[in-house]
Amino acid sequence: MSEEWVEEWKEELTEERILQMLEERQYKQLKEELENNMYPVDLADILEEFEQKQMVMVFRLLAKEEAAETFAYMNSDMREILINALTDSELEEVMEEMYLDDTVDVLEEMPANVVDRLLMMTDEEKRRQINQLLQYPEESAGSVMNVDYIALRRDMTVAEAILKIRQVGLNRETIYTCYVTEKKKLIGVVDVKELLTTSESKLMEEIMDTNMLYAQTTDDQEDVAKTITKYGLIALPIVDHEMCMVGIVTVDDAMLVLQEETTEDISIMAGVNPSEESYFGTTVIEHVKSRIPWLLFLMLSATVTQMIMNSYENALAVMPQLAGFIPMLTGTGGNCGSQSSTLVIRGLAVGEIEFADVLKVIWKEVRIAVCISIVLAVVNGIRIMLMGQGDATMAVTIGVTMACTVIIAKVVGCTLPLIAEKVGLDPAIMATPLISTLVDISTISVYFAIVSAVFAL
Amino acid sequence: MSEEWVEEWKEELTEERILQMLEERQYKQLKEELENNMYPVDLADILEEFEQKQMVMVFRLLAKEEAAETFAYMNSDMREILINALTDSELEEVMEEMYLDDTVDVLEEMPANVVDRLLMMTDEEKRRQINQLLQYPEESAGSVMNVDYIALRRDMTVAEAILKIRQVGLNRETIYTCYVTEKKKLIGVVDVKELLTTSESKLMEEIMDTNMLYAQTTDDQEDVAKTITKYGLIALPIVDHEMCMVGIVTVDDAMLVLQEETTEDISIMAGVNPSEESYFGTTVIEHVKSRIPWLLFLMLSATVTQMIMNSYENALAVMPQLAGFIPMLTGTGGNCGSQSSTLVIRGLAVGEIEFADVLKVIWKEVRIAVCISIVLAVVNGIRIMLMGQGDATMAVTIGVTMACTVIIAKVVGCTLPLIAEKVGLDPAIMATPLISTLVDISTISVYFAIVSAVFAL
Repeated sequence: MSEEWVEEWKEELTEERILQMLEERQYKQLKEELENNMYPVDLADILEEFEQKQMVMVFRLLAKEEAAETFAYMNSDMREILINALTDSELEEVMEEMYLDDTVDVLEEMPANVVDRLLMMTDEEKRRQINQLLQYPEESAGSVMNVDYIALRRDMTVAEAILKIRQVGLNRETIYTCYVTEKKKLIGVVDVKELLTTSESKLMEEIMDTNMLYAQTTDDQEDVAKTITKYGLIALPIVDHEMCMVGIVTVDDAMLVLQEETTEDISIMAGVNPSEESYFGTTVIEHVKSRIPWLLFLMLSATVTQMIMNSYENALAVMPQLAGFIPMLTGTGGNCGSQSSTLVIRGLAVGEIEFADVLKVIWKEVRIAVCISIVLAVVNGIRIMLMGQGDATMAVTIGVTMACTVIIAKVVGCTLPLIAEKVGLDPAIMATPLISTLVDISTISVYFAIVSAVFAL
Repeated sequence: MSEEWVEEWKEELTEERILQMLEERQYKQLKEELENNMYPVDLADILEEFEQKQMVMVFRLLAKEEAAETFAYMNSDMREILINALTDSELEEVMEEMYLDDTVDVLEEMPANVVDRLLMMTDEEKRRQINQLLQYPEESAGSVMNVDYIALRRDMTVAEAILKIRQVGLNRETIYTCYVTEKKKLIGVVDVKELLTTSESKLMEEIMDTNMLYAQTTDDQEDVAKTITKYGLIALPIVDHEMCMVGIVTVDDAMLVLQEETTEDISIMAGVNPSEESYFGTTVIEHVKSRIPWLLFLMLSATVTQMIMNSYENALAVMPQLAGFIPMLTGTGGNCGSQSSTLVIRGLAVGEIEFADVLKVIWKEVRIAVCISIVLAVVNGIRIMLMGQGDATMAVTIGVTMACTVIIAKVVGCTLPLIAEKVGLDPAIMATPLISTLVDISTISVYFAIVSAVFAL
């Protein structure tokens, strides 16, 4: 049989095979294969490529539980098509099977009339919980938490606790840590591992860990995700201001939060206002809107560089070859600065660097900058001589400018993200685009100050 | 008592309190508090700031299990100090308590003589496993997997399975999914949730999921981590080429892998060769070595720009104010290009964009570029007129150059990462530094071609 199993596994349920089975009306076989041979997250991906009618047909073949999970992984366009195509009773089944946190995600993206229709499908208790969840601020722990978890009493025995888990069921992550509460207040946590490996007559209060980690509903989702990563947790309990337990954030949601937040950081570092939607899910106009503010700001900031250069017009008229060195100097300065700012921004993001380290960071960057500037200046000097772009004086002049540029760029690049962190701004805005504009200004100033002194322009 | 608990929680065990208790020789109380009131990952952080003698003293107070976990979180310098300070029997206890994957991490960083001493402390069976693990290539699934997991037989009942978990114990993540094997071959998985909620007499082969996900020892650790994220798993089984089960990668390790890989990507995107060590853990010379290759390459590439500019020396001598626009044009081009390349690189990293989308991406970027170029050209034209930096002809000329620059930058920026992916390079190398150098060259060429035509230079 293990041979047979390997065979089964290989026969993948691809987009083409599903379409073929639909065409040949092999609904029963398709239904069976969908159930045994397909993960909801993959099915949602596949259905995205389908036409509306086919998508609805496949969706109708799914078992309740799979249907609900697949629905949760779909994008908002697909969800709207389904909501319009399904009957009220079909929709009710899907809504019943969905976890509350997924339901809330779905509702947040739907137009008001659809939300009303969906809410009418849910029973009163669930409606109350949904409304509660919808009120938590975006990106807060409350907005990503799961309200399904196992709550135990301190005077329960291990056997009673296991019985409770049996009865309540729920999904995987939500049962692996249980929470001991007293008048709704969180007083301890018990791992399922503990329950499985301890004598059945022990009481929760004997085995629970009272020195537990938790977060509040209003805490930032990123901090919650970082705590889960740092301590290697399966779930983190979320409490309100009175320590009453209201939900949990599970490790799988934490991983998605971290991925989203990293994408956001990287966007900001490239001068793009982050969007919730995917690259293709964002329209051209939205892309333009999210990219143009920084471009405009930086373009106008470059006016300063231009003004400095214009004040040296006469020098350029006499020695026009001076202009040729400018892109190389500003480019190198920009690259040096962005190396430093990027490493510091990432260090801040993963919690390795903090503002208190500012002098340590600057001292390190200065030493790095000195080493780098010597290498670059010497290599560039040799290049200038070899290519006949100038004499020894020119080589030394450019070398000195290069050294100053590298040192200034590195110091500015490492300091600004730390200052941003200190004053409560996102350090990611201090990345390449801004740093390179600032470095441009200082490079041009230093360059013309030095060359006009050396060549008496 | 719940009040009391809240009090207890607040009284944090800080660095200062530990030092004070050491000084006052309150060893017993310190030992107790370390056990109840401190997470190993936090203690490792705190001990990093301690002097050697104090660190060793605190470490000796820890219970075996805590000691092993704290040791696993320490950096290699701290570990070496401890290894030299501890007696053989103390060291043996720590080694016995450590999970195998942590032991291997420790050994990989130690000098050969220390490895020998440590290996002598372990029993033969463990030594054999360690040697096996040390052979997996770096960053492979085999190198991060955990060899402790619960293996069940297909003919076991639920009750027998639970008994086995009780006997074997192990840590949390490693028991929440159990693996059904037959002659060591992986044939199915069973969630602990399944065990807890099914009738005790059912057999594993009745409840196991045979359509399970798995990875091979030689698979990339990043792919394994992505699978765990995508499917929301607690652990992924790792098999050898014959489908024999050899270990699992747990979700907590997957999160650390993803964090490392993101840091690597971000470093490469800033033109820094990634290092395994932290920012402060890397010496100045190592920082220089990891940053200088790209800086040198890009500085020398800028020679091309310089050569183009030098060929227009006469034009610059006649109209030196032309040079003033260069930093603004190259800066804007660089920023436009890096916006596009960064979004595409991230899209590739999270699996949203693939090479097959290349035309879709270019078409999107071209439309975005047209919109952006119109806005930037108009705003800049108005600025030039208002600041008296040129007449209408100059404003239009710069505007046209700006538009060309933006469009070229966006197309180059979005295409290169996709090409890199296609030819098997890391798309992250196609980020800002390289793009901005390439865009510099095209901007300068376009600029001088246009101005020399317009102003008949």
